[in-house]
Amino acid sequence: MKDFKVIELKKSVFENNDREADRLRAKLRENKLFLLNLMSSPGSGKTTTLKATIARLKDEYRIGVMEADIDSDVDAQTISETGAKAIQLHTGGMCHLDAGMTEQGLNNINSDEFDFVVLENVGNLVCPAEFDTGASKNAMILSVPEGDDKPLKYPLMFSICDCVLINKIDTKSVFDFDDEAVVQRIKKLNPNAEIFFISAKNGTGIDAWCDWLRKEIDAWNK
Amino acid sequence: MKDFKVIELKKSVFENNDREADRLRAKLRENKLFLLNLMSSPGSGKTTTLKATIARLKDEYRIGVMEADIDSDVDAQTISETGAKAIQLHTGGMCHLDAGMTEQGLNNINSDEFDFVVLENVGNLVCPAEFDTGASKNAMILSVPEGDDKPLKYPLMFSICDCVLINKIDTKSVFDFDDEAVVQRIKKLNPNAEIFFISAKNGTGIDAWCDWLRKEIDAWNK
Repeated sequence: MKDFKVIELKKSVFENNDREADRLRAKLRENKLFLLNLMSSPGSGKTTTLKATIARLKDEYRIGVMEADIDSDVDAQTISETGAKAIQLHTGGMCHLDAGMTEQGLNNINSDEFDFVVLENVGNLVCPAEFDTGASKNAMILSVPEGDDKPLKYPLMFSICDCVLINKIDTKSVFDFDDEAVVQRIKKLNPNAEIFFISAKNGTGIDAWCDWLRKEIDAWNK
Repeated sequence: MKDFKVIELKKSVFENNDREADRLRAKLRENKLFLLNLMSSPGSGKTTTLKATIARLKDEYRIGVMEADIDSDVDAQTISETGAKAIQLHTGGMCHLDAGMTEQGLNNINSDEFDFVVLENVGNLVCPAEFDTGASKNAMILSVPEGDDKPLKYPLMFSICDCVLINKIDTKSVFDFDDEAVVQRIKKLNPNAEIFFISAKNGTGIDAWCDWLRKEIDAWNK
């Protein structure tokens, strides 16, 4: 039995997404709700990272997760098994979420029950970077198998994120991945980005990432 | 010194992309030019697979490669080192190529010099699936680190491809990846899809993939 809702998002009617995003962000701050927009390529480990994050933070914050996908409910199923409340958002073929779609999701998850909500965006390094969702902070995951050249190819995504997680570092023995090069490439685009090297699978680095999250959540919700 | 051109693509002016794609495909057949549209997530190994493919086929066919990216020239540089002719297409932020943009690329690579041209599409499992480029055949790469659940989440991409390459099988020892499950999920969406398990890095499976390509090129260009 599914213990999560599936929401079919409607296309937003707003002409000015940036204005809607700023309006949503102001509302989140007023309501003391920290919204994290988590982005990455398909298969970088967003859901596994979220599972490890929820395990660390679930006794400190009331956590909700909105899983966005074009189709399928597999991620909401996985998250609902952690005990956190999850809903699945279907984008109807859309390759990203904008602020209006994000707010539809928040209205459906009963966001006043939470301190911290994660939007797991559609797996895509291109389009989600172009649409401000109204989130408090943006984070992205780059996984080791994808390669250290990705900041060169998808510069906008790396530029708009407050935090970059380099995931799957447990697999470095079978890939050529240059830690220093990737940090340099990210910092050139985005000098203020926080960067953490993690393995969502074995837990390496998750504590440092959760410390950063705590600091951001507490500053936002105070 | 760069020995490849960089082309800034213009947004297409055509209203009906499907009609333009059919027109381009008919022209390719008339000119005995086989165009392969190669798609995948960022970092699945499109460029490495192309390098291995060119090494096998360069004495049999005159091969050209159009590398599409939002930014950067790293892929055209890599391909031009194989001896094949490469050009870099910049999409100006666009997350996919349509038939009009593909034809701009073909006009710039002097396509009458080739029997076989590859379009390496923007790394993205969503948007490129929605736009017919006019190519003779569509192929995609799913890499083992991305996970065997991707056909569930990006069904359109798996549905429109004539051939699916499962890459990076040399890394299977460090990932949970179910070969049978992924084949079943692909076949359910697309019963006629050809599926090859490959490692572009160590060459496993590349001969079988090149045999499929030879058959398709020869049938198209006869």
